[in-house]
Amino acid sequence: MVVSALRNDGARDEVALGAALDLLQERFGSRFTRGLEIRRQHANTTTWLPNEPADAVVFAASTEEVSEIVKICAAHRVPIIPFGTGTSLEGHVNAPKGGVSIDLSQMNKIVAVHAEDLDCTVEAGVTRIQLNNFIRDQGLFFPIDPGADASLGGMAATRASGTNAVRYGTMRENVVRLTAVMADGSIVRTGSRAKKSSAGYDLTRLLVGSEGTLGIITEVTVRLHGLPESVAAGVCSFPTVEDACNAAILTIQSGIPIARIELGDAMMIRATNEFAKLGLPETPHLFLEFHGSPASVAEQAEQFAAIAQEFNGGEFASATRPEDRTKLWQARHDSYFAVKGLRPGDTIQSVSTDVCVPISRLAECVTETSADIAANGLIGPVVGHVGDGNFHTQLLIDVTNPEEIAKAEAVISRMNERAIALDGTCTGEHGVGQGKRKYLVKEHGHGLDIMRVIKGALDPLGILNPGKILPDA
Amino acid sequence: MVVSALRNDGARDEVALGAALDLLQERFGSRFTRGLEIRRQHANTTTWLPNEPADAVVFAASTEEVSEIVKICAAHRVPIIPFGTGTSLEGHVNAPKGGVSIDLSQMNKIVAVHAEDLDCTVEAGVTRIQLNNFIRDQGLFFPIDPGADASLGGMAATRASGTNAVRYGTMRENVVRLTAVMADGSIVRTGSRAKKSSAGYDLTRLLVGSEGTLGIITEVTVRLHGLPESVAAGVCSFPTVEDACNAAILTIQSGIPIARIELGDAMMIRATNEFAKLGLPETPHLFLEFHGSPASVAEQAEQFAAIAQEFNGGEFASATRPEDRTKLWQARHDSYFAVKGLRPGDTIQSVSTDVCVPISRLAECVTETSADIAANGLIGPVVGHVGDGNFHTQLLIDVTNPEEIAKAEAVISRMNERAIALDGTCTGEHGVGQGKRKYLVKEHGHGLDIMRVIKGALDPLGILNPGKILPDA
Repeated sequence: MVVSALRNDGARDEVALGAALDLLQERFGSRFTRGLEIRRQHANTTTWLPNEPADAVVFAASTEEVSEIVKICAAHRVPIIPFGTGTSLEGHVNAPKGGVSIDLSQMNKIVAVHAEDLDCTVEAGVTRIQLNNFIRDQGLFFPIDPGADASLGGMAATRASGTNAVRYGTMRENVVRLTAVMADGSIVRTGSRAKKSSAGYDLTRLLVGSEGTLGIITEVTVRLHGLPESVAAGVCSFPTVEDACNAAILTIQSGIPIARIELGDAMMIRATNEFAKLGLPETPHLFLEFHGSPASVAEQAEQFAAIAQEFNGGEFASATRPEDRTKLWQARHDSYFAVKGLRPGDTIQSVSTDVCVPISRLAECVTETSADIAANGLIGPVVGHVGDGNFHTQLLIDVTNPEEIAKAEAVISRMNERAIALDGTCTGEHGVGQGKRKYLVKEHGHGLDIMRVIKGALDPLGILNPGKILPDA
Repeated sequence: MVVSALRNDGARDEVALGAALDLLQERFGSRFTRGLEIRRQHANTTTWLPNEPADAVVFAASTEEVSEIVKICAAHRVPIIPFGTGTSLEGHVNAPKGGVSIDLSQMNKIVAVHAEDLDCTVEAGVTRIQLNNFIRDQGLFFPIDPGADASLGGMAATRASGTNAVRYGTMRENVVRLTAVMADGSIVRTGSRAKKSSAGYDLTRLLVGSEGTLGIITEVTVRLHGLPESVAAGVCSFPTVEDACNAAILTIQSGIPIARIELGDAMMIRATNEFAKLGLPETPHLFLEFHGSPASVAEQAEQFAAIAQEFNGGEFASATRPEDRTKLWQARHDSYFAVKGLRPGDTIQSVSTDVCVPISRLAECVTETSADIAANGLIGPVVGHVGDGNFHTQLLIDVTNPEEIAKAEAVISRMNERAIALDGTCTGEHGVGQGKRKYLVKEHGHGLDIMRVIKGALDPLGILNPGKILPDA
């Protein structure tokens, strides 16, 4: 008989929950806790969404242990929330229905590096910086950089990307295969290490981006890349966002294999000027990075310089020495804290939005969004991975001011709907979590029904990270 | 009430089937046929698998018409087999349980080209050559080239690729979004035109490669690329398959953005020498293509030449003028017919295998496979997309000789299992269809159970292309 902590009427059965927690406590001892502090650390900590802790946290050490935990939870219908580093931005790790948070950070072994095949297999808790430190000596690197030192399992679960997705792709393109624990505790290893395959349904990519709602990713095999022989950085000012976007479009269209192409708007530049005394012209800028042989990098930089001129770009400065590159990119690197400096205060929270549109609609989307922010008296500079049509505004909101929160929510809502109306998405790389669920109705239409059918088939008890991705019916 | 042509006991209910066909005939008039000749043309024609025609063929002209057909079929539980150009190799278009073949070739409109976004939307029946002819004037091309002039819908459904996947990816990476008719006749449009998204389950990639068993793809949006400014072709001989593979591995590892890198083994070269009087040394060869700026292409060719020398390569000839490039690649272009010439005869069929392994295991897999073919007295030269670890043998089989067929089947079986044991796949790009179903048990293990759950949830009546991908339970 299945006893159920998650009742169909929405109420909790504390007896069933208690029974499951007792079993977990007995099995995992000191790696199990009901302490509030730990539980709060394992719930949302990074945005204005409320912190909703699970009833307990278990630290798992292997795929088999995760399977054991899931089997106990499934037998008592206890919700399960996978936890990597807790750096997600949309409440992915909250436990709105309680349950058990499974912390995977102790699963941090690098299982195998296949340098000849340019791939490696790691446990879900390995972070990207840990991996890059490990493989650097072999002349290899893992390119995906979402900013935070996130775990590879979490990055796969949220389909993360970042500044150099324009060249190297996102987790969608870079996860070769994975191991996951499904809702019944069974363990599946998807795909193979072959670079391509036509052998049946793409379970790997079904699980990538499923945010722990279809299975718990416990191991991933990811693609690696050879460290580029030469790297050049560059920066260029433009009179308008539109000029900067047009330069980005032509760069991509010309087939320049640009590694990064980042937009900062005038307000972002002003913030970094104040923060780091930079003296940049306070207009939109593009920050660029080129990877390749020395000759190819030089050629790319030259080609970009010509494109920039076509779109009224200022002087294009580029450099290949690491210290010079850092200087050119300083404004971009500092942007998060620099922007926070625009409005200091304990009650001011930085809220990051994340839309992605076809690149031809990018200037329009950025410009309208910035105008909306200004019209509402809010502060929200723009940084963007413009090669992909993806940009963020960093809204600085006084979270003690309900009127300001309402204004910000309305601005964000219009921004997401604007992106969807422009054939884009309400989230380029942050994921849905709790925060973006309501926008999926408009974005996916009937696709959302199909997602629900898949969810119902693979997690019939609804215990895997409930309250995420799919809006309440 | 659902009447059912596909009974649970496996028998056919001719009354239910007849009722559905009458409705289709009435609705589609001359675009509906029960004629045997047309039905046979719409079943498997490309391999030694038997031709299993559907009971009728309907030529659909729009997504809405496909939806109407599916609704009629669903109401009578009649199997549906989507048909593009009929160039698949594993019996994908056969109708082992009868039913209705939906021919999508009249859905051949190019719906929209977004040159700035490097994507375009086409109906499923548009072929890759048609598309490339249409977009060439805009300086764009669609890179995926499976050899045959297949339809984009069919290529998406089988997750096709080909010679330049090493640089541009497969249909997995190049389908941006798609429209599909689901098993209940509902129409879904997956994803958006944003280059990346973290907004929920990846329905696009679930349908890509699902071979019409989860939905019928009626429209696809695919990525385009700028025509390279310069193209260079090259060819180089190697003493052994291992040397050639090692040169390919180092080329990839060095980050040379090679556009094509094809292996032909000694027997393939001998065949083309005889076919076209070429006079190449009869040892393994690599055929290469480089895309980029003139300077980049020259640099790539130089870098490859150095690598080839390291692995005992012969003289490396390269050229950029179209007519010279064609000459260098002639052996590769001619290989299919040249190999057929090794064993002429009306009863001799050419059977193409298709495994893909991690590139580090490629030489081993090719060498053992070739030895097995030789030990069984069969003829089967090797061509391979070696940058991806993917290769084909083209077995020449006398299909009137049961003993020879049995030997060939055993060789193919061992080849597929060898690839799976080497962490690879039984199909790199041809798909599963009927022919590869049995290998999925070993390749996917528990993953196959999960595929069955998904299939059961999305097609509960089992009417979408039955008898494909999933082995009989």
